[in-house]
Amino acid sequence: MSLNNVKALIFDVFGTVVDWRNSIANEAAGMLKPKGYDLDWHAFADAWRQRYQPAMEEVRSGKRPFTKLDVLHRENLEAILPDFGISDISISELDHLNRAWHRLSPWPDAKVGLTRLKGKFIIATQSNGNVALMVNMAKNAGLPWDTILGAEVCQAYKPMPESYLRACDLLGLAPSEVLMTAAHNDDLKAAARCGLRTAFIPRPTEHGANQTKDLEPDPSIDISANSFIDLAEKLGCP
Amino acid sequence: MSLNNVKALIFDVFGTVVDWRNSIANEAAGMLKPKGYDLDWHAFADAWRQRYQPAMEEVRSGKRPFTKLDVLHRENLEAILPDFGISDISISELDHLNRAWHRLSPWPDAKVGLTRLKGKFIIATQSNGNVALMVNMAKNAGLPWDTILGAEVCQAYKPMPESYLRACDLLGLAPSEVLMTAAHNDDLKAAARCGLRTAFIPRPTEHGANQTKDLEPDPSIDISANSFIDLAEKLGCP
Repeated sequence: MSLNNVKALIFDVFGTVVDWRNSIANEAAGMLKPKGYDLDWHAFADAWRQRYQPAMEEVRSGKRPFTKLDVLHRENLEAILPDFGISDISISELDHLNRAWHRLSPWPDAKVGLTRLKGKFIIATQSNGNVALMVNMAKNAGLPWDTILGAEVCQAYKPMPESYLRACDLLGLAPSEVLMTAAHNDDLKAAARCGLRTAFIPRPTEHGANQTKDLEPDPSIDISANSFIDLAEKLGCP
Repeated sequence: MSLNNVKALIFDVFGTVVDWRNSIANEAAGMLKPKGYDLDWHAFADAWRQRYQPAMEEVRSGKRPFTKLDVLHRENLEAILPDFGISDISISELDHLNRAWHRLSPWPDAKVGLTRLKGKFIIATQSNGNVALMVNMAKNAGLPWDTILGAEVCQAYKPMPESYLRACDLLGLAPSEVLMTAAHNDDLKAAARCGLRTAFIPRPTEHGANQTKDLEPDPSIDISANSFIDLAEKLGCP
C-alpha cells in the first residue's frame, strides 16, 4: 500500500519511543535503595506495568468512566507496594515515584529520528498516557512533538477504534493519511482496522533480554524500520 | 500577585500570536483579484471575522452541539460571499480560502519570543481554533508549541470557564500555575475568574489603524509586556 498520501505520523510512546522498564527500575532504585530496600527493580517495574492493561480495561469496558493514566498508575503503584514489602514511603515520595512515568528516557534513536520526521510530517503522540504525562516527558527528554493527542484527548484508550479515529479527526485527516507507528503489532493491527497506515519499529529489549513478543512485524504492517532514524530514511526525510 | 508558581503559559492565538486581518485580506486578494474581483480586502476580512463570535455563541448557548471552527469559518465564508458579489468561485477554491486561517502570519516577535519562553515554561495554544488549524498554522509559521489545547480539546469555546479549567486539568496544573496570555482583556478577565494568572500583550493594529479596543491592559491583569520578547525578558527567559 502506498504511503505517498501520508501527512501525519502518530506514535505509540511507552516502549516505542521511551524505555519504560529500565527508567522505572532506575527511578524506583534511586528512591528506595537509600531507604534500605533491596529489590529486583526490574521485577518491580514489571509488576507495576502488569496492572496497566487491566486498569484500562475497566475504562474500556465501561465499568468505570474515563480516568487519566496518572490516576491509574497511582492506584497500581499503591497496589503493588505490599507485594514488595514497601511501607516506609511518604505521600510526597509516592507522588514523585508515580511521576517517574513523566521522566522516562527515550531510546537512543528517538529524538534524532523524530526531529528528522518532523521536517516532513506532522508528528504527534497517540499514547494511552495523559496529556500532562506526555508534555512533561517531552520537555524532560527533548521530544519535538507538534502536538499531544492520545487517550485523554480522544477519551478512549487504545486499542478502541474511537482512539485512532478521533486522532485523525482532530488532525483533519483521513485515516489513510495517518501513519500509526509502534513497536507493538496489536496496536498497529487495531489502527489498520480503522484505515490508518502502519509502521513497525522493533524494540526487542522493551521487556528485557528474554522478550519473545513483537520481535518481528506482522505481515500486514505497511512499513518496518529498525529505528526512528531508519524510518526517517525510508520516508525520505533529510 | 506573584508569578513564581507559573509552570505553563497558554496563549490566545488569533490577534495575539498571528495577524489574522492582514493575512486574510492578502489571501482573499491573492485568490480573487486574478478572477477580476476588486474589493476592499480588509473589509472582506472584517466581515468574515464579524460572524465569528455569533457562530460560537450558538455553540456556547447550547443551541448547537460543539462544532469545530473550520466548519463555522466555512459557513461564515459562504454567508458573506453574496455581500461582496462573489459567485465565480469553485468548491476547491472555497476549501483553500477557508484554510487561509491555517496559514495566518505571526506578528514579528511571536516566533522568537515563544522560543525563549519555551525554554523555561510549557507553552500551549488556548485558542478557539481547532486542533488541525493550530497544528497546520504552527508547521507553516514555525511556532514551537509544546502542545495544542483550546476549544476543540476542551469541547468549550472561550470565554466559557470550562475552556480554561479543562486546559489546566489537561496540563495537570492548578489554575494559579497557568498564565493566560492574550491581546484581549475580556479573554484575560474570564481566565482570571477561573483562577489563572494573566499576561497582556497589546496588538494595537489587530483591527486596523483606527483600533480603539484593547490598547491598554485592564488594571486587574497580572503582567503586561509590549511583545513576546519583552514578556520573555520579564519572566526571566534567557
